[in-house]
Amino acid sequence: MADVFITENFMLENEMAVRLYHEVARDLPIVDYHSHLSPRLIAEDYTFPNLTVLWLRGDHYKWRVMRANGVPEYFCTGNASDYEVFMKWAETVPKLLRNPLYHWTHMELKKPFGISDRLLCPETAADIWRICNEKLTQPEFSCRGLLKQMNVVLVCTTDDPTDDLKYHAQLAAETDFPVRVLPTFRPDRAMILANPESFHLWVDRLSEVSGVEVKDFSTLIEALRKRHDYFHEMGCRVSDHGIEQFYAEDAKESELNQIFRDAYNGRLVSTNERAKFKSAVLYHCAVMNYEKGWTQQFHVGALRNNNTRMFKQVGPDTGFDAINDVSMARNMVRFFDRLDQEGKLTRTIVYDINPAFNEVFASILACFQDGSEPGKMQFGAAWWFLDQRDGILRQLETVSNFGLLSRFVGMLTDSRSFLSFVRHDYFRRILCNLLGSEMERGLLPKDFDLVAKLVRDVCYNNAVRYFGFSLPLV
Amino acid sequence: MADVFITENFMLENEMAVRLYHEVARDLPIVDYHSHLSPRLIAEDYTFPNLTVLWLRGDHYKWRVMRANGVPEYFCTGNASDYEVFMKWAETVPKLLRNPLYHWTHMELKKPFGISDRLLCPETAADIWRICNEKLTQPEFSCRGLLKQMNVVLVCTTDDPTDDLKYHAQLAAETDFPVRVLPTFRPDRAMILANPESFHLWVDRLSEVSGVEVKDFSTLIEALRKRHDYFHEMGCRVSDHGIEQFYAEDAKESELNQIFRDAYNGRLVSTNERAKFKSAVLYHCAVMNYEKGWTQQFHVGALRNNNTRMFKQVGPDTGFDAINDVSMARNMVRFFDRLDQEGKLTRTIVYDINPAFNEVFASILACFQDGSEPGKMQFGAAWWFLDQRDGILRQLETVSNFGLLSRFVGMLTDSRSFLSFVRHDYFRRILCNLLGSEMERGLLPKDFDLVAKLVRDVCYNNAVRYFGFSLPLV
Amino acid sequence: MADVFITENFMLENEMAVRLYHEVARDLPIVDYHSHLSPRLIAEDYTFPNLTVLWLRGDHYKWRVMRANGVPEYFCTGNASDYEVFMKWAETVPKLLRNPLYHWTHMELKKPFGISDRLLCPETAADIWRICNEKLTQPEFSCRGLLKQMNVVLVCTTDDPTDDLKYHAQLAAETDFPVRVLPTFRPDRAMILANPESFHLWVDRLSEVSGVEVKDFSTLIEALRKRHDYFHEMGCRVSDHGIEQFYAEDAKESELNQIFRDAYNGRLVSTNERAKFKSAVLYHCAVMNYEKGWTQQFHVGALRNNNTRMFKQVGPDTGFDAINDVSMARNMVRFFDRLDQEGKLTRTIVYDINPAFNEVFASILACFQDGSEPGKMQFGAAWWFLDQRDGILRQLETVSNFGLLSRFVGMLTDSRSFLSFVRHDYFRRILCNLLGSEMERGLLPKDFDLVAKLVRDVCYNNAVRYFGFSLPLV
Repeated sequence: MADVFITENFMLENEMAVRLYHEVARDLPIVDYHSHLSPRLIAEDYTFPNLTVLWLRGDHYKWRVMRANGVPEYFCTGNASDYEVFMKWAETVPKLLRNPLYHWTHMELKKPFGISDRLLCPETAADIWRICNEKLTQPEFSCRGLLKQMNVVLVCTTDDPTDDLKYHAQLAAETDFPVRVLPTFRPDRAMILANPESFHLWVDRLSEVSGVEVKDFSTLIEALRKRHDYFHEMGCRVSDHGIEQFYAEDAKESELNQIFRDAYNGRLVSTNERAKFKSAVLYHCAVMNYEKGWTQQFHVGALRNNNTRMFKQVGPDTGFDAINDVSMARNMVRFFDRLDQEGKLTRTIVYDINPAFNEVFASILACFQDGSEPGKMQFGAAWWFLDQRDGILRQLETVSNFGLLSRFVGMLTDSRSFLSFVRHDYFRRILCNLLGSEMERGLLPKDFDLVAKLVRDVCYNNAVRYFGFSLPLV
Repeated sequence: MADVFITENFMLENEMAVRLYHEVARDLPIVDYHSHLSPRLIAEDYTFPNLTVLWLRGDHYKWRVMRANGVPEYFCTGNASDYEVFMKWAETVPKLLRNPLYHWTHMELKKPFGISDRLLCPETAADIWRICNEKLTQPEFSCRGLLKQMNVVLVCTTDDPTDDLKYHAQLAAETDFPVRVLPTFRPDRAMILANPESFHLWVDRLSEVSGVEVKDFSTLIEALRKRHDYFHEMGCRVSDHGIEQFYAEDAKESELNQIFRDAYNGRLVSTNERAKFKSAVLYHCAVMNYEKGWTQQFHVGALRNNNTRMFKQVGPDTGFDAINDVSMARNMVRFFDRLDQEGKLTRTIVYDINPAFNEVFASILACFQDGSEPGKMQFGAAWWFLDQRDGILRQLETVSNFGLLSRFVGMLTDSRSFLSFVRHDYFRRILCNLLGSEMERGLLPKDFDLVAKLVRDVCYNNAVRYFGFSLPLV
Repeated sequence: MADVFITENFMLENEMAVRLYHEVARDLPIVDYHSHLSPRLIAEDYTFPNLTVLWLRGDHYKWRVMRANGVPEYFCTGNASDYEVFMKWAETVPKLLRNPLYHWTHMELKKPFGISDRLLCPETAADIWRICNEKLTQPEFSCRGLLKQMNVVLVCTTDDPTDDLKYHAQLAAETDFPVRVLPTFRPDRAMILANPESFHLWVDRLSEVSGVEVKDFSTLIEALRKRHDYFHEMGCRVSDHGIEQFYAEDAKESELNQIFRDAYNGRLVSTNERAKFKSAVLYHCAVMNYEKGWTQQFHVGALRNNNTRMFKQVGPDTGFDAINDVSMARNMVRFFDRLDQEGKLTRTIVYDINPAFNEVFASILACFQDGSEPGKMQFGAAWWFLDQRDGILRQLETVSNFGLLSRFVGMLTDSRSFLSFVRHDYFRRILCNLLGSEMERGLLPKDFDLVAKLVRDVCYNNAVRYFGFSLPLV
């Protein structure tokens, strides 16, 4: 049956693009160096009971557009049956023309489900539901099956410092599972004092797992370092930090200890004090990252939990976040400059969420390239709201104009979903189309090997080299 | 005679675009849900004595480019004769290549004047002046004639709460005039304390027309509510608010009463006090809008009256405004979050004037989509400085990436001119070209009916449904 | 031999573009109204010993991408031999695909060196080194030879008020050298109090050359005015001001005198005091510019010297600057509004470094067009980080949408390098391609003469007229 939408040459608009994609990019292995996949589901090789569980139960991107389409919360995060939820999604899809979810949805139906002869809409929904659910019972559609189908060779999950990483250990011990699953150290909860009760509980857990009695700022850092050590032993080589902005306030240790005790004991902590505390935690984590030769990632600029009513009802990460617009440059410079002066700035990737800041971020990062290794400071891939064609193109434009596209470590999913690996394919098509188009227009040399090398590097080799993964180069 | 510039397929660069425009968009009725047309001119069916009165006497867009071209103020807002003014405009037009006014000017000459075989320049000016002035004596070129020629079926004007709406009443009573003319409630003057004298006068007029003696903040709101009621009786279903930014400061009623009395009595009111006052008025208006099931519009971000010398000489709205760049996100979130928590957030359109904020605004609005109806929170059409090809494309890109283009309520003129309806045509051509191009490139399915439905909805149906106008769907 | 990359029609993607470029733009003389060329090198007609000295020894753009490519500082600003440095550059070039330096590098190899049959890379490096160095011994490759080869007819250098301009005088006296070399008054050092020691030394030199004993703010302005007079006598007609943002704080003269004395005597000056001081100096310079009928330029928004370690090691202007993101609008309005109210606002060009501010800047500038002359307030050409295809296109889009492209004074190099004149060619190709493409697409009239006139004006005539250079119009 003919492909009605996602054809073989989807997004490839010229001959060079077609060649770069099909001869070079398409079959490259996927190194997904930042995701939110569940290591437990991989370890247990979970099988999805139906398409809604796989596709809709955890995806706030989809909930967000469903709400915008007038679909009540009952069908998003509520108690509607899996089939009802799917049918509401099927109603919404035809309304998504030009939204990236329209592309992703049909790409995911094509791969791994093999459905490309029809568009998802109420008329086709029942059949698609049936076909997909049948496939989900097959071994190639378990969590591991999906990873293998998608040609994934390495995945980094995102993990709290208190996590015991037992599933990572279990997976590492399995010699016949070909996908490496590595943890990422994400210590955000050590920085967030806005909810003292939650902070208290988390600190207690940290004390427990680290064996350090955390009672002030100094012991907090000591305990984090223990966990950092443990993560390192478990193969972790990368940290991740979700921050509204960079923090670079000065504070004495005594002051930080007091702020810690106030928060831990449920007392009020001012905005200014919180900024000092965040600055210090972030700085010490960056030093640990440097000491162990890790790569550090900063996801910067989200404005979270903007809808109080819904936050109370359904909690965080449910589709009520946005993009902030506060000035970023000064603090970003101060943060990196301090580390650089002390000789403690490790490889760093900064992900920008506000496209108006692309040039600011990229130009600042370039001030800390120190010649010690190629592409040390990376302007990260298009992220979250910007993970769509327009956002990807703007990110590529920024990387190219302000640095070296050829040294860019490429795409990641940042996703909780086992289907999101099509975003690597999406990215590769966009990249090949851009490069192919510029070759044909004479903006790049018509030298296939030269450009093919760049494609291979950006889509695979650069990440392997940059993170130091023990994977073969291609 | 051949069209030298604005051809039948102007801006339509591929076959699908041509079909979408000519088969679908072109002849759709125009619902102009936000304009600054004079209801009096419509009621009196005013006839324009010449092209300068129709085209140049009230258009600060044109004055602005004339000044940039070195044309003295005498020919813009000054006492030059109508013919002299027109000739200065004709001198300026050839200098406008790539400015949106170059397109608009020639589109307006083609429709309604039928002049498309030449470009406006000093050499053609005398003839064009003569031809247009002759046409202006014909009944199809009166205010009502122009509305009918342009296929306008509904217009919302923009009206002060103190307005008696008598022309709206008169028009509503005329059963044989097919264009509906509805008022919009625009209470900006209730918020602006920067000029106490002007505020005092306006408050006194409000007291008079509302029958409420306005002597403090509470009575101000009471009087506004009376007028809100009256506007509702007169068919108004939409408010509009021109604001520099969102305001969301807390204040006690006693404080607001004191601020009111200070301003009313000509005493100095601080920036901080003004922000509190604006916050409160804006909040209460939003509550009224919710209570009556209206739609509310916010035009956000203009920085006005920047040229003091010219402000003293020719007053506001004369071409000396600009785009502001202050941080918007936090207050915007606070404003909508409060209303949402109280269950009092009605349908809302936010118009952004700084394209660097597009993604911020659109991502925040999406946090308040509540599933109650499709497209409840709208990222509004490209506005003012951005109402040009590039701005329109960026707005469409933002709407598409951050929400549902298919639910977008589409274009408006925001204009004082009876010729500006060509901007709907301009928008439709740009939309059809974008969609047609993406169909041909495979970025959208090659399904004409699917995309045609989107075009019909965005260009007409969505506005009818969203505002609840009693007009037939197509 | 065939051109492998920079062909005759490089960047010209349609027939109209080809005609506009080859028939109109290509051979227009170059008026480089803002550069950082050394007048001494021109006066002495310096000959470059090899390609590294010409190309790499002063170019922080190149150092920046070399560092990003992992090249140690030793090969950038360090003691590596000229040949070693060149080889490191040759290693870096193939990694620059899509960076503007990839285009510039090959354009500069083609013109003036005539090398276009190969790309620069390690394999071709030795030959290219040899060929270029041979050419550099020929008279057409001296500083003057290069200016003539590039068809430069006028250059403005950038000069400190304390400069004696002796090389300008010498050049002006040479009747047989056809390139005019004019100074630019750049008084930045009068504003910068952050380094009191450096300020003190500079003030003393100013006292000496001006004959005014500079001991407070008033005498500082008096001395600057003397130098302004002197620059005027020497043919200077333009000033330039590099500022982080506009400054528009009020201060009494007594306060300014005190701030001066504090800084001069090495005492601490607060951020607020510095802003007042900068405001006053900038204002007085603008008044001088008005009084003499000069044009003033403002380069706005760079965030400099962000890497403290490298600043200490290699000083300023070495590739460690970035783009700032602080709010600009209010102060910019205040600064120009004050001058305009006093009738002292002269012709002004503002260069924006943050593309997110393009629309803000352009809309503010338009508020101060006063009809006194065409294009009085100019939104300047794409600058520094933005001087690349994407940045140039966005600048052209902004100028077109917010004002009159036809009145734009066009490109400049802003460069220290005698090879950078290819950027005029780069700009002309981009401009012609944009216009040609829009003619073919029907967005501009298919009227060759109309558009050709715009090309001639933007690429040459406008600058001649605007700055009042005594050069023939074409």
